[in-house]
Amino acid sequence: MVAYRAFFGHVDGCLPGAHFESRQAVKEAKLHKEREAGISWGLDAEGERAADAIVLNQGYDDDLDKWDEVIYTGAGGRDRNTGRQVEDQTWGNRGNAALRRSRISGNPIRVIRGSEGERDYSPVSGYRYDGLYQVVGEWTEAGRAGFQICRFRLRRLPVGRQGNTSLEQQVRDLITGQGHSDVVESDADEPERTTRRQAITVERIVRDTAVVRRVKEWHRYACQVCGLALTVGADGKSYAEGAHIQALGGSDGGPDIEANVLCLCPNCHVRLDRGALYLTDNLHVVDRYASGPASRPVPLRTVVQHRIGERFLQAHRRFWRISD
Amino acid sequence: MVAYRAFFGHVDGCLPGAHFESRQAVKEAKLHKEREAGISWGLDAEGERAADAIVLNQGYDDDLDKWDEVIYTGAGGRDRNTGRQVEDQTWGNRGNAALRRSRISGNPIRVIRGSEGERDYSPVSGYRYDGLYQVVGEWTEAGRAGFQICRFRLRRLPVGRQGNTSLEQQVRDLITGQGHSDVVESDADEPERTTRRQAITVERIVRDTAVVRRVKEWHRYACQVCGLALTVGADGKSYAEGAHIQALGGSDGGPDIEANVLCLCPNCHVRLDRGALYLTDNLHVVDRYASGPASRPVPLRTVVQHRIGERFLQAHRRFWRISD
Repeated sequence: MVAYRAFFGHVDGCLPGAHFESRQAVKEAKLHKEREAGISWGLDAEGERAADAIVLNQGYDDDLDKWDEVIYTGAGGRDRNTGRQVEDQTWGNRGNAALRRSRISGNPIRVIRGSEGERDYSPVSGYRYDGLYQVVGEWTEAGRAGFQICRFRLRRLPVGRQGNTSLEQQVRDLITGQGHSDVVESDADEPERTTRRQAITVERIVRDTAVVRRVKEWHRYACQVCGLALTVGADGKSYAEGAHIQALGGSDGGPDIEANVLCLCPNCHVRLDRGALYLTDNLHVVDRYASGPASRPVPLRTVVQHRIGERFLQAHRRFWRISD
Repeated sequence: MVAYRAFFGHVDGCLPGAHFESRQAVKEAKLHKEREAGISWGLDAEGERAADAIVLNQGYDDDLDKWDEVIYTGAGGRDRNTGRQVEDQTWGNRGNAALRRSRISGNPIRVIRGSEGERDYSPVSGYRYDGLYQVVGEWTEAGRAGFQICRFRLRRLPVGRQGNTSLEQQVRDLITGQGHSDVVESDADEPERTTRRQAITVERIVRDTAVVRRVKEWHRYACQVCGLALTVGADGKSYAEGAHIQALGGSDGGPDIEANVLCLCPNCHVRLDRGALYLTDNLHVVDRYASGPASRPVPLRTVVQHRIGERFLQAHRRFWRISD
């Protein structure tokens, strides 16, 4: 029999948030070695027993889950049939010793939550992989049943970073996985850094440039397609987005100038960006997926200062293969 | 009199897209040294004349503006009164020599467009700062008026990067200003890199995680607040966003789990994120800025699999100082 090698960090192809129907499925995904026990451990590079994953599923009354901090109760001393604590837990238990070893080595621990755990943080059914945590301390204390228990404090490796940072900083951190290198002291190949890249897909970015701000002010934050001015604050403060007709970026992206920007509500912005709306050269808006009266082109709402560049309308239609 | 020192790159506090009423205002912003001439130049670190900015305002018939590439006609040989070409241009002209010097040195050139320029790329009135370009070549040729003219090809330093990159790559580039370091060969303190950070404010980022995708599927992409399923493609393909009730990130950010995510249309997402909408513990949605019948709380649309965590509703209300 070959000894299990502990494997630290994320597992290929398995993002935090991944859902599993059963412990067997968790095991098959190679997130956790065991089918029943809470602690997954194996030999590390130095041949010592080290933990690489735990399952939080309210196995012990004394567990405490605050999402980014978890107090986890070790293994051993429970009656096999009732699951109740009937003896002291000890550091001689291999799982407990392995978790301690990972605290000393700074190994990240994969945390999987089951549906029996803390209500607000647990999946409704089955199991969910919740990313990497770090063991930051362990001790023994008297448990509720009166026996000594081994306890571990784990902290979630931060997805953002610490403190009060700007949105731009947060984005950079989200995208690059920077910003917590001061926290992660593991030398396990900076796993959380890798993750961040894999785990977070950016669906949509709304930029706010000087040009965009000017266009939004011209239109007083009302959507040029549907007329809506989205109220987001007291005293009627409105929200609108600057939508680039010919998208920015890429090898033949459009320019960030007024003639290429519309003031739109977020819904119409998404629809323009996905080609569900387009504009004719005479500045009528066509809804490609409307039927009946709603499918008639409607004039774009304009103001005299705001000149739209025909070539950007054409580039947008060309991109979406619309012949008009 | 102290000689003007050429200054390469962006000017503090002046983002691309900045608008000016007059050449005088452009000069006062220190974007361009001259009040009339097209080329701004001064002495560089080695005491040579080098250009640092140009104004594109259809000064010459032969100018050609394709936004990211510009053919610019040099200085000299024009009649002071009529502005028409009456003599050959030469490299002896200081402005022309200075632009050539900047091509050799790789200095970035600030480009300012006036309202008389190429229609689609020029401001409706006044002047607009359009960021940094690089002189990539110069030559002489016979102009339309029959005299020799000095010509320069300028290319805009890329805002994105080259080729077909992923959205995530584009974001990273947008935020960090990476991706064009292979283009900028200037040693002028990597000015374009600095800019990007200043120039682009990210107003809004929509993340798409495994958890978000699951929640959206549960609700079949219909908004849990207003019921809208935004049609974005043929065969009724819909678009929705995962909205974190207690925002992600920051020192006490919420978790990325189903109990903290709603499936919303972009408009309702913005309003939730800005505190214009909130939820009561019994899962009713309140519009804080509605009046009349619209101000009555409406039940959140739910599905049985989707359990919402009360603590996240409470954290959201606490953040927006809503006592309910």
